[in-house]
Order: sequence, then C-alpha cells, then structure tokens
Amino acid sequence: MNYEDLGYAKVDHHRAKRTGEGEVVYGESKTPEQILGIASALANKGAKNILVTRLSQDKADILAKTLNIPFEYHASARIMVVLPDDSTPKYGKVVVACGGTSDIGVCEEAAITAETLGSHVERLYDVGVAGLHRLLHNLDVLEGANCVIAVAGMEGALASVIGGLADCPVVGVPTSVGYGASFGGLAALLAMLNSCASGVSVVNIDNGFGAGFIANRINRNAKSGI
Amino acid sequence: MNYEDLGYAKVDHHRAKRTGEGEVVYGESKTPEQILGIASALANKGAKNILVTRLSQDKADILAKTLNIPFEYHASARIMVVLPDDSTPKYGKVVVACGGTSDIGVCEEAAITAETLGSHVERLYDVGVAGLHRLLHNLDVLEGANCVIAVAGMEGALASVIGGLADCPVVGVPTSVGYGASFGGLAALLAMLNSCASGVSVVNIDNGFGAGFIANRINRNAKSGI
Amino acid sequence: MNYEDLGYAKVDHHRAKRTGEGEVVYGESKTPEQILGIASALANKGAKNILVTRLSQDKADILAKTLNIPFEYHASARIMVVLPDDSTPKYGKVVVACGGTSDIGVCEEAAITAETLGSHVERLYDVGVAGLHRLLHNLDVLEGANCVIAVAGMEGALASVIGGLADCPVVGVPTSVGYGASFGGLAALLAMLNSCASGVSVVNIDNGFGAGFIANRINRNAKSGI
Amino acid sequence: MNYEDLGYAKVDHHRAKRTGEGEVVYGESKTPEQILGIASALANKGAKNILVTRLSQDKADILAKTLNIPFEYHASARIMVVLPDDSTPKYGKVVVACGGTSDIGVCEEAAITAETLGSHVERLYDVGVAGLHRLLHNLDVLEGANCVIAVAGMEGALASVIGGLADCPVVGVPTSVGYGASFGGLAALLAMLNSCASGVSVVNIDNGFGAGFIANRINRNAKSGI
Amino acid sequence: MNYEDLGYAKVDHHRAKRTGEGEVVYGESKTPEQILGIASALANKGAKNILVTRLSQDKADILAKTLNIPFEYHASARIMVVLPDDSTPKYGKVVVACGGTSDIGVCEEAAITAETLGSHVERLYDVGVAGLHRLLHNLDVLEGANCVIAVAGMEGALASVIGGLADCPVVGVPTSVGYGASFGGLAALLAMLNSCASGVSVVNIDNGFGAGFIANRINRNAKSGI
Amino acid sequence: MNYEDLGYAKVDHHRAKRTGEGEVVYGESKTPEQILGIASALANKGAKNILVTRLSQDKADILAKTLNIPFEYHASARIMVVLPDDSTPKYGKVVVACGGTSDIGVCEEAAITAETLGSHVERLYDVGVAGLHRLLHNLDVLEGANCVIAVAGMEGALASVIGGLADCPVVGVPTSVGYGASFGGLAALLAMLNSCASGVSVVNIDNGFGAGFIANRINRNAKSGI
Amino acid sequence: MNYEDLGYAKVDHHRAKRTGEGEVVYGESKTPEQILGIASALANKGAKNILVTRLSQDKADILAKTLNIPFEYHASARIMVVLPDDSTPKYGKVVVACGGTSDIGVCEEAAITAETLGSHVERLYDVGVAGLHRLLHNLDVLEGANCVIAVAGMEGALASVIGGLADCPVVGVPTSVGYGASFGGLAALLAMLNSCASGVSVVNIDNGFGAGFIANRINRNAKSGI
Amino acid sequence: MNYEDLGYAKVDHHRAKRTGEGEVVYGESKTPEQILGIASALANKGAKNILVTRLSQDKADILAKTLNIPFEYHASARIMVVLPDDSTPKYGKVVVACGGTSDIGVCEEAAITAETLGSHVERLYDVGVAGLHRLLHNLDVLEGANCVIAVAGMEGALASVIGGLADCPVVGVPTSVGYGASFGGLAALLAMLNSCASGVSVVNIDNGFGAGFIANRINRNAKSGI
Repeated sequence: MNYEDLGYAKVDHHRAKRTGEGEVVYGESKTPEQILGIASALANKGAKNILVTRLSQDKADILAKTLNIPFEYHASARIMVVLPDDSTPKYGKVVVACGGTSDIGVCEEAAITAETLGSHVERLYDVGVAGLHRLLHNLDVLEGANCVIAVAGMEGALASVIGGLADCPVVGVPTSVGYGASFGGLAALLAMLNSCASGVSVVNIDNGFGAGFIANRINRNAKSGI
Repeated sequence: MNYEDLGYAKVDHHRAKRTGEGEVVYGESKTPEQILGIASALANKGAKNILVTRLSQDKADILAKTLNIPFEYHASARIMVVLPDDSTPKYGKVVVACGGTSDIGVCEEAAITAETLGSHVERLYDVGVAGLHRLLHNLDVLEGANCVIAVAGMEGALASVIGGLADCPVVGVPTSVGYGASFGGLAALLAMLNSCASGVSVVNIDNGFGAGFIANRINRNAKSGI
Repeated sequence: MNYEDLGYAKVDHHRAKRTGEGEVVYGESKTPEQILGIASALANKGAKNILVTRLSQDKADILAKTLNIPFEYHASARIMVVLPDDSTPKYGKVVVACGGTSDIGVCEEAAITAETLGSHVERLYDVGVAGLHRLLHNLDVLEGANCVIAVAGMEGALASVIGGLADCPVVGVPTSVGYGASFGGLAALLAMLNSCASGVSVVNIDNGFGAGFIANRINRNAKSGI
Repeated sequence: MNYEDLGYAKVDHHRAKRTGEGEVVYGESKTPEQILGIASALANKGAKNILVTRLSQDKADILAKTLNIPFEYHASARIMVVLPDDSTPKYGKVVVACGGTSDIGVCEEAAITAETLGSHVERLYDVGVAGLHRLLHNLDVLEGANCVIAVAGMEGALASVIGGLADCPVVGVPTSVGYGASFGGLAALLAMLNSCASGVSVVNIDNGFGAGFIANRINRNAKSGI
Repeated sequence: MNYEDLGYAKVDHHRAKRTGEGEVVYGESKTPEQILGIASALANKGAKNILVTRLSQDKADILAKTLNIPFEYHASARIMVVLPDDSTPKYGKVVVACGGTSDIGVCEEAAITAETLGSHVERLYDVGVAGLHRLLHNLDVLEGANCVIAVAGMEGALASVIGGLADCPVVGVPTSVGYGASFGGLAALLAMLNSCASGVSVVNIDNGFGAGFIANRINRNAKSGI
Repeated sequence: MNYEDLGYAKVDHHRAKRTGEGEVVYGESKTPEQILGIASALANKGAKNILVTRLSQDKADILAKTLNIPFEYHASARIMVVLPDDSTPKYGKVVVACGGTSDIGVCEEAAITAETLGSHVERLYDVGVAGLHRLLHNLDVLEGANCVIAVAGMEGALASVIGGLADCPVVGVPTSVGYGASFGGLAALLAMLNSCASGVSVVNIDNGFGAGFIANRINRNAKSGI
Repeated sequence: MNYEDLGYAKVDHHRAKRTGEGEVVYGESKTPEQILGIASALANKGAKNILVTRLSQDKADILAKTLNIPFEYHASARIMVVLPDDSTPKYGKVVVACGGTSDIGVCEEAAITAETLGSHVERLYDVGVAGLHRLLHNLDVLEGANCVIAVAGMEGALASVIGGLADCPVVGVPTSVGYGASFGGLAALLAMLNSCASGVSVVNIDNGFGAGFIANRINRNAKSGI
Repeated sequence: MNYEDLGYAKVDHHRAKRTGEGEVVYGESKTPEQILGIASALANKGAKNILVTRLSQDKADILAKTLNIPFEYHASARIMVVLPDDSTPKYGKVVVACGGTSDIGVCEEAAITAETLGSHVERLYDVGVAGLHRLLHNLDVLEGANCVIAVAGMEGALASVIGGLADCPVVGVPTSVGYGASFGGLAALLAMLNSCASGVSVVNIDNGFGAGFIANRINRNAKSGI
C-alpha cells in the first residue's frame, strides 16, 4: 500500500515515483497538528524539501515550536520548507515577473516553490505596463528562460505583453490585487485567459505555488535544464 | 415646448442648445418608419449631420428608398448620416486605435461619429500587444492628440498600454471580439475598468458611438481644438 | 535609465515627461516602509505634489513619524500629498457632484486629486435623483465646467441625469454605497456603463482618484484651462 | 373540484374567486393547441377577458383560424384577449411611462393588461432622463395616478426619477433594451432594485404583464378606484 | 428654496409635500453627527415621526446621548423614530409574513416603517413552505389586507405561495438568510422576480424599509384605508 | 479489455456490471453516424433498452432510416430507446411532478428514462404553487412513492413545497422555462439548492434524464421496489 | 392544531408524522434563547435525537449551561443532539467520502446527521483524485452502500469519479474549500451539477446536513435497510 | 520596419524571429478577403505552415477558390494550413486526451496545431472519468510525453485526474460541451482552474489552438524534443 492513513489524511508516498515531486502540504485550512503529522510522515519516509504552502505566520510560529527537524519559513511567500536541502545545484532558468509591488507575495510563492523543487529562478518585479520602458529595458532577463511566470493583478495585461515577447511558455498568475470591478482577481483572470498572445496558460488567482510547480516541470525537462 | 411629440417618440429639439450636439437616433430597435419620422422631424427643424447609429444594412436599404433628403451610409460603422455637411474644417485631433482587424467595425463607429461631430480623426489599426513593436513604431501618431480611443476585445490590454504612453485622456472601448471566457466582451470591459494606467475611462462594450461622442467633446473644447 | 530600482519597486521617473503627471503611489497594499522609500525617491528627483492614494489613517500616522519633509493628509479622501505646492493658481473648472452623503469620501478623493494636479474644483454634494430639485436648483454650478465628475452608489442614476444636462464630458464614478443587490457597486457600475446620455464614460467602483486624474487632463488642456 | 384537468394543464377555475382575477394563459412555450384548449376551458366556465400573454404573431395567426369565439390581438403587446368585454367603465388611473421608443412593446403589454382587467390607463412614452424636460413637462400626467409603471432599459434610471416625484406606488419594469454590459436587462434590473427613491418595487425583466396586473390590483382597491 | 444645505447633506424639506412622506434618514454609512444634524434640521421644520433606518445599536447609543428631543429605538428593526407621534389611529391593514425565525429582523424593519407612517400592521411569522400547514392555518390573517409583505431567505418560495393565495398586491422581500449558493440573498431575489404568481413585485435584498414604505402607500390610498 | 474502441468513442461494456445500468448515449452533439456506431456496438454485446438522450427529431429521422433493429422514439422526451424490452413488470413507484405545461418535455425525459430502466412511474403535471389546491388535491399520488421528481422553471418553488410534504427523497430538476431574470434556469436552480425543506437534492437545469436515472436507482433498491 | 406558536417560531410538531423525521433546528442565525425554546418545545412533545445544526462552539457553550436535559455536541460537525438516543441499532450503510482533510467538517455534519437519524455510516476521508490509488484501494468500502455522499471542494471531481464507480445514488456536497476562482464553492458546485456520471445529485455548498438527511431517507427505505 | 501594413492589418513578420513561431491568422471574424491578404503577405515573405484557425467550412470553400498556393483544410479542427510542409520529422511527444466524443473538434484543433508546428502527437479520445478504466488501461500512452493536453467539457474532471497521474505539464482545455449550469464551458473552466492536482494550467474555453501552441513550445524545448 503506497499511502499512509493518518485518519484525517492519507499521505501519498507514491507521488514522487508517479509524478516526480513529493506530496505537497496545502496548509490553508489544516491545523498545526495535522500539518505536523503529515510532514512528519513524509519525513519518516525519507522525503526532503517538503513544501508546506499557504502557511500563515501564526501557524508557522506554532509549528516551529513542535517541529524537531530542520525547516525554513519564507514569510512573504507563506511557505515553510521542512528538511530543506540545497546541496544540489539549481538547473535551467525560470523568470518570475510581476506588475507591481503588491504582487510580490504571490511572486515569492512561485519563486520559492520553483527553487525548492530545483530550478534556478530570476526575479523581475514591478514592470507593469503603465511604465512599459521598465520591462523593455529588461528584455535580456527573459532570454534563455525555459518558462516565464507573469504575475499581475488589476487588468492583468502583463501576461499578454510578455506573451508577445517571450519564446518560451508563459504561465500567467492573476492576483487579487485591486478593488471594485477587479472582483477579487476575476478581472485579471479573465484577461489572462483571453490573452491575444498565443503562449500563455493560466492558473488560479493568487496561485503562485501552482505556477512555480508547473514552471519547474517545464524547466527540469528542458534541454537547457538539469 | 422644446420637444416634438410623435407618439412613439418625443424628439428633443432642445438638446443642441443644452449640450452642444443634436439628438442622435439609436437605430437598433426602431423600425425604419420610426427612424424616418424622427430624422425628418429633426431635419425639419434645421438639423444637419443627423446621426443614425446601429443601423443594419437591411434597414439602411429600406430607409434609402423613402428618405428624400441627402444621406450617407457607412456600412462597417453601421451609421447613417442624414443631411451630411462637410463644409466646415475639422478641428483638433482624435486618434482611434485598435488591437486587431476584428475590432475595425467598432473603430469606424467611433471615428465616423467624431468626424461627423467635427473632429479631425486619425486611425491606427491592428496594433495589439501581441506584437508591441507595431504600436511602438507609431508613437508619433499619438502625439498632439487631444483624446485617444483605444478599442480592443479579448483581454483589452491595449487600453492600459496606451494609457501608460499617452498624455491625453484615453477612452477605452471593450469589444465583444473573442470567445469562451471573453463572455461577450466582459473580460475586456473588466480589464479596462481595472487599468493600472491612470488616464483611462471606459464606455460600454462595442460602444464606438459613445467613445467618439466623448472624444469629440474633449477635442472641441481643447486648446488645440476649433 | 529613466527609472530607479528599489528592488520591491521600479520608480518611474520618466512618467512626468511622458504623460505630464508624475508617478502616483497606490498606497493600498504597500507597507509604510515601501511608501516612504518610493516617495523619498520621487522627492529626491525634485518631484512635488506627490500623491499617495488609498492611505488609511493608520498608515498615515506611521508615515507622519518617519517623513521628514512637508506633507498634508486628507482623511476623508485617504490621500497624502507629499511636498504639497499650492503656489501656482488653479486653472479651469472641474465639478465633483454626488448623490448622497455616503459618497463624500470618494468625491473628496476625486477633488483632492484634481486640485493637487492643478485644477480648480467645485463641489456639489447630495444632489441625488430622489430629490431632483436639489440638482435643478444648482444647474449654474455645471455651467462653464470643462468636466463633471458624477459620483453615485445604489442605482447610479446621477451620471445619466447629469449627462443629459451638461455640455462637457462627464466621468461617472460608481460607488460601493448600498447593500444587497448593489453587489458592492456593480449595480451602479452597470447603470453608468449603460447610460442613455451620450457623454458619460466610467471608471472603476470607488475610483475617485482615477476620475480626478482624467478630469484634470481634460481640464488642463481645455481652452478655458491654464 | 375547482380545477379542470386537461392532462397537459390543470386549469384553475377557482382563481377568480380566490384572488379576484381569472387564470391567465402564459403563451410563450405552449403550442397553439394547448392554448386553444385552456382558453376554451376557461370560456366554457363563463370567463371573459381571458388574457393570453407572450403570444407571437405566428401563433396568433394559427389561433385565429381555430378560435370560434370573439378575440382581439394586440400585436405590439403580444397579447390576445379572448371574449373581450369592454362594457363596464374603466376605473381609477394607472400611468405607464417609458424611457424610449424601444420600450413601447413592454409598455403596451402592461397597458393592455391593466385595461383588460378594468383600469383606466394613461400612456407617457419616451420621457427618458437624457432629456429630462420631457418628463418635467408632463408632471400633470402623474397627478392623481394610483400607480405608475416605469418601464426602462439601459440604465433604468427612469424608475428612480419618477420614484422621487410621484406620491403613489411605482412599479419598475426593467427591459432588455440595450447591448453589451446591459446583459439582457440585468443592468436596468439591478438599478431599479437599488433605487434611492423609496416607493419603487420591481418585476422581472420585460414583464409588462406583471406590472399591469399589480397596478390594476392597487388601482381597483384605491379610494379613487371603482 | 425647498431644501436646506448642511454641506454634507441637502435636506429635502419639500418631500412631504411632493410625495406625502417626509425625508427618511438612511443611517448605514452616516456618522452619528451627520444623523443628528439631519434629524435636527427636519425636526426644526416641524417634522414628526422621523425615520432613521439601518441604525446600529452602537450608533443609536451615541445618538441617544446627544438627542435632546424624544425618540424610540427599535433594536431588532434597527430603526430610530425621532419625535414619535402615535396620536392618530392606524388605518387599513398590512400583513408582514416571513418564512423563518431568522427573517424577523427584516420583518420588523418593514412593520415599524409601515406603522410609523400610519398603517395598521399584523405579523405572521415562521410560516415557511417546509411546513405549509402553518400558513394554510392562518389564511384568515391575509383576508382584508390591502398589501402583504412576504419576507423570505433561502429559496424565497413564500412570496410565490402567498402570491397564489392573496387578492391584494404582494411585496416580496428576499433576505440574505442562507449560505453557500444563496449568494447573499441572490437566490431568493431571483426566485421572487420569477414568481409564477402574478401579483408579486420585489424590493432589494433585506430591504424591509422599502417594503414597509410601499405597503403603506398602497394601504393609505386603499378604500379600506384612512 | 472491457471497453470497445471505435476511435471516436470507447464504448463502456463494463458499466452494466459496475453500476447496474448499461452505457447511455448522450445524443446532443454526436452525429447520427456516431450514434449509430455506438448503439450498434452496445446491441452487438447483447444490450437492450439502450437509451439515446437529447436526440432531436431531425437526427431521429435520419437514424430511423439506418437502424435495422427495433427502436422507439419519444418526441417530447427527445429520447430514442433502441431494442426496447418491456417484458419485465415495472417495480416500485416514482412520481414525476411539474409546475406548468411548459415543463412537460423535461418531465417526459425523466419519466421515459425511469420507465425504460424498470420503474413504475406516475405523472402529476401542472401543479405549480400559483394554484396550490391543485397539488393539495393530489397528495395521495405522492403516497407510497420511493422518489418524487419535482420539475419546475421560473422560481422553482415546487421542489420546496413537495419537499415539505413528501416522506421520500425528492430530486429537483430546475428547467429553463422563463425569461429575463430566470437567466436560463439559474433562478430555479439556485432556489432548489437553497430549499428550506430538507429532503431535496438537485440535478442540472433541464436534466430530466439524470433525475430519472437517480430516481430509478433509489426505487429499484427500495423495499417496495423489485 | 399541529404546530406550536412561540411567537418567533411556529414549531412543526406534525413533521415527524408527515415526513418521517422530526423538525430540525437550523442554529445559524438563531439566538441561544430561541434555540433553547424550540428544542424544549420539541422535547416536551416527546421528541428524541433533536438535531441542532450549524451551532458554533460559542453558542453551544451558552446552551450547555441552560439545557437541563441530556445532549451531545459534535464540535467538528457543529451539531448538537438533544436527548440523544442510541438504543436502536443502526440500519443499512451510508458512505461519506471526501477529497481532502479540509473537507472533514462538512463530512462530519453529514455523518452525524445520518447516524442520528438511524443510519450505519462508514467514513472514507482524503481520497481526492490527485492520488487516485487511495480511492481505488478502497473500492470495497463502496460495496453494499445504499448511498454514497461525496464531499469535495476545489474542482469537486470526486463526485464524478465516485459516480462512475458506484451502483447506488451518489449525493454530491460541494464545499467552500479553496480560494480565488473557487468563488466560495461555486466551482465545485457547478462541477458536480455537470457531472458526466449519471447517478449524481447535488445539495447546497457545505450542506453536509442536507446530504446526510437525504442519504438516510434512501438508506432507511432500502431493501438492505432497517 | 518588421511588419507590413495592409490597412486592416499590420502583419507581424518579426514574430518568428522573436518567439519562434510565425504569425497565426485568427479566422473567426475576418472576411475571406482579409484572410487571403494576410496569408499571402506571410507567404510572400517565405513563411510556410501558415495556420489559419477557427475557419468555418464556408469560408474555407471560398478561400479554396482564390488561394493559388498549396493548402490543406482540416474540417473537424476548423484549421487551414497554407503552404503545408511536412518534410522535417516530428519531434518529442505530445498527448491530446479528451473526455468524450463531443470534445473531438477541440482536440483536433490542438493536435493539428501542435503537429503543424513540429510536434509528434498521440491522441487518446473518450477516456472520461465516468468510465475510469478506459483511462487507466491507457496509462502507457502518457509515459514519455513532454506535455499532455486534457480536453473536457461538462465538469472537466479529466484534467485533475490526468494531473494526478502524469509527470509532465498538463494543459487543460475546458470545452463548451454541456448545457444548463455548464454555462457555456464556465463549469469546466472553473474546475480546471481549481484542480487539486498541481501540474495543471488552463487556457480559454474551446481554445484547442492555444493548448497545441503551448504544448509544442514545451515539447520543442524538451530534452527528448528535437
């Protein structure tokens, strides 16, 4: 049996073999006790770089007191990495770009995810389309990337603009930054789904983790990857 | 009494005095007979350049047979101008830009409206953000404009990009060009309402007429106007 | 290079040259430290009248302790003006009108923005359509305006009514005032987008800043402007 | 048993006794055969002024050939009245007002309904808020009314404006007249539901029948009614 | 001039003459100071029974300390009546019915409004359709009513059921009682708008005040009214 | 291998064993050729009573010419049964009830489905809540049922009313009957999902088939079933 | 008279006779006093196993102090059972399955409801489709079930997957677990309503109670039931 | 100047250099004349394998008569390839999978796009989750893929299920197959965006082209690619 039954969770020890990445713990609506239990079960089976996402500072503080194995907590990304292991060199290149300062939390979630999974990541922040020269001045950052993650709230135009400039897949991450008719990120989401540039696919609103995960899959398998 | 009662319509002869433009006939859901009646009433009071908007080719053909005063029909704009009068020179400068070939009908509605009301109009078509150099190559067209109308469907990013480049008011017109999650132009509408560039206001989906009308108001009152 | 890279922000020093207004700091989701850094960078380059919008009283209090250059905080507008400079006379005329007492915060955001950017502003508050005589009694306020900003929540009818009376562009600002089927301002937004009066364009829900910004652009370029 | 079972319908012969009006036949998705059957069943029980609503011209033509009892078809209202009986004088006063020519079909549905049920009706068409003086010039029509029906598409502001002027209940009927962000009448519906005037209640989009029915109930029971 | 300008408000002293009811103070987003100012201005002109709606207990407590004229506060209705005057006998009959215990707050808002404006009101609570016999057992309460207010959350079926039984106008009030796919009262709102019973009109979600206001208008003008 | 690969379809011959019912052919967007191929493959494996749903009269006519095995077409249900087999007696009792004549097509889809799968079905049509006595007069029909299917458009109140009366599971089927704010059946769908009666579950709008399928599952397994 | 009028509630003592289950107290928006009153009224009439749902820990603590009859509070299910009676053996089999740890609260609401009403329940938690082998490894749990309740948030795919495997009715419960484009459970709700598997019906978002109630109805009436 | 101005279009000859793929012609709302002009302009510059997407059979027939260079039309994919060039061998592996027969048109759009751009493509059709064994029986097809495109309508669960099994990026394509609460593909779109499996990104509803384009980008850059 390739999973472990904790009652409140069936930990999927088979996933690393099946898809290449270990199980990730979605921390949002789990108690610190549940997270501790699942992370420990994974660690006991030899997993490293265990990602716990959407973990608030509060829960992280509680966990920090009970976890007796090494971990790192990235506050702006709201990610804890249990048993972090940076010994192997990072491969390839993933770029994480965003429209504005307010999108940085989601960017960091994407960047830490991709880095923890093995990718080399470059950050390109605050290059929104209201001041296009800031992006155009940094086109060299896009060069050689195997995947670009475009993070933007409000009207989400950054994904389309980058999509028209890049020669690799672009993963758009709409964010909930905005107000009124942004409807919690819906405006940016719809914009990215309707991108007139052809190479853009989209993940859920504020889903930095998902974008980092996909970008790493593309990057680890790329010629210029590992 | 400053209106004329036709039963099915109360023709507003006072509007030109009140707002500076004569009454416009919204042709969409009126019968050719009703349009003929209203246009005739306006013409009888001395109006010129009477705009009949959203007039299909079919209705235009019927009207053409019964109207015994001069008119012009602009097919792609779906606008008829009754008693067209081009004798006065056009003033100022309005730019009508769009993202793609499919937006041209809405652009023409805006352009013909502004021209008929008195504005000098320049067209800048198919400069969508998927090929940004096409817009950047034409920045001189934007210079000196008193208003830019940015027409785009799909993700509507053009309004934001132009908004970040222009020094005059930008009127965004989302179009219903697109499919699926464009939801009939909703995606472009929300995008334009959430523009991260500050000088962008928005009109209804496919409302080229409204944009042309507003642009002319801005333009006719501008220093470099009449 | 015409921007300054602070890591969390790329401050656009080129914008004043490009569009005529300096960069504006959107304060909503930035930390006081980030706002301080960006405002300082702008001040160091000689900017004046630096607008910080959507700044809560709490953040303003924190900033007040660390900012060592002059500033003004407008509480109901939630705007801080850093290095305020009122030495030049205001030009033209912008009218800010609203339907009810509850809309005044958004009105002030629009008015302070336009005033700070250089416009002469007149306020016309609580003239909602439920007591039409209050507006009709003040029609002289609308005369001579280069732009009217119509602010209204609930059903947003004020924009249409003013649109039928004014001879200049009207910028509608739907507000989130209301409950139930107002859906956070959606009702007023849709109403204004569908205005039967022709001269109305619209900005995002509660976006007083955007309306003030656009009104100033129209006003500064108007014949009766500077 | 106070209903009659036709298999495809259980005709409610008890309704006139219970609510004061006989059963009404909703013609939209019924076949001419079904309509004929139901109308005949009602006629056989002595009903008069049988309303068949939402009856297209096509179906009306088919019915006309098979009905062997008197009827009238009102094309713009899409209503057929079977066994029409105008012998009793109309009571009270109901006003049906609308914003524009395109709303007249819905108005007529309301007016014919109220008239058939017994009310005296006055029509006030094309008094939309884009030309407010047309309504203000006709305020005397509103006087003495027991109910005003306000019919409007697009932004639906007419209901609020009349609501602020009338001293009797106002029933708002949003119409599907419009395009784009009118979303089939949703904009007008939300506007009327959020009316800042206190005396306005609302029926479904394009539901002229419902408004006429309610207005007649209010009117027949009013002091100045029958 | 028939209004009084307080700066933040233009108090409509003309409304009682125009529509028969004095101005009502919508307390939701006004400060206690603003409410005090407006109520005082109305009182100074001789108004009585001044309604202040959507007034939280907190604000009411603050107001209670500064108001030096008589008032009553109805907590579950969240209504304050300033200068209450019960000297004249109530007229006619209005019924306020609801589906469940959770709807009582909205019911009381309707009932207190109608009573304060002059109507005799009867309450019929917790007669939801899940136990139909509770309504059927109380049909006599509906008899002789000039208007029934049907208040319901969740699926809002009560309005339709009462609509099929009553012989007077029914005003439906959808409430935000529910969760999940009730979407804050949208489900009940749509249900009431689509009622298969003909005599039902609808007001905004949780708008007990509006329903009470309309019901009183119908009731005061009814034969069996004043 | 327990499926058959036709290229355009992988016919699931295992389903009867797995779930107790054979594969059903969803005819909506399949060509007659594809339907013929799948139905033939099923027939070749010995299946009987093969359901082809959402089959228009047009496609049925084409199929009728090429099918060389027995079939029945139920026009109002838009269902074809290939190799119909009525030899075994029907078990238990399922009631299919609806609000109005316009819902009968969806009812028949449910009824034919349940009958073809083996259930005894009783129909109770046009018992909508606008004339409640029609339902109350037929309460005996509900007695002894193992499942009631409640089909209704507009406000969908029938499901709640029956849910409050029945002692067996009620499956609600919202229909797209209605207009305006029915939004294609959304109003009825939301109403049924929010039913205040506890025993109601819901299927997709107009999904008579699904309701009939579920009802048969409940019925065939019931004590008073087979 | 088969109900008891407490003023704020009309307690339905007739329901057990009519539908087989006693009245259930929906605790969400009732005060502890109201709940106490209703529960006591039911207890006084001899009811046992009285369900109080959606009761927060806070209210439960208050109630615990005033209730002087036996009760149990199930914290994760937010259910209180007043006068619990476990003396009769549980019948049949209901399975409650969920996609992830975060759905367990809703599962428990369903499970406790069904158990309290008399059903034997088996739990199968954290078998979401991202690790399909966890479900496939437990197919034996589904065998012999008279009803399966499938609880899932996010994309809600579990209902379809189980629907394709089970031979009994499946009741889907979408949960509000998720973020962004989950829109409070809307994504899962729509997914379950559109299930390509035929035996799935759906209840409201997070409505564990409703699912447990329906499952018990199916189960108690099944051959392998009581 | 790296684009060619045709008036109605600015053909982007620079795109192949910038992003690696030539400009694609979106045929949906262009006239045959416009398509001919753009395709000819591209051909004149030496482009091959020119994709014209969303081209109806009707337009294709018209184009066929005027195009005097080789082309292929793929009817179910609605794609025309102008100057098709199959001389170079296909690289890597892309899998296109779908839930049902009705999704095949969208699948073919994806497959033809990826093939024309250079990818080796394998098709896996009709493996929807209602019969899970059909997918599980074909897991070997997924092995070695550099990208899997998962196409599904209705509840779109296929993307999540494949996402939990594959070790490469999965691009989800929701389709508009379904009815009622599928809301034109919205249900499947939301489901895929909320996938509980981590490697899934999403494109617009029915956007087979976009998915094929992205898959080819991933595939051509993969180790096992060209």
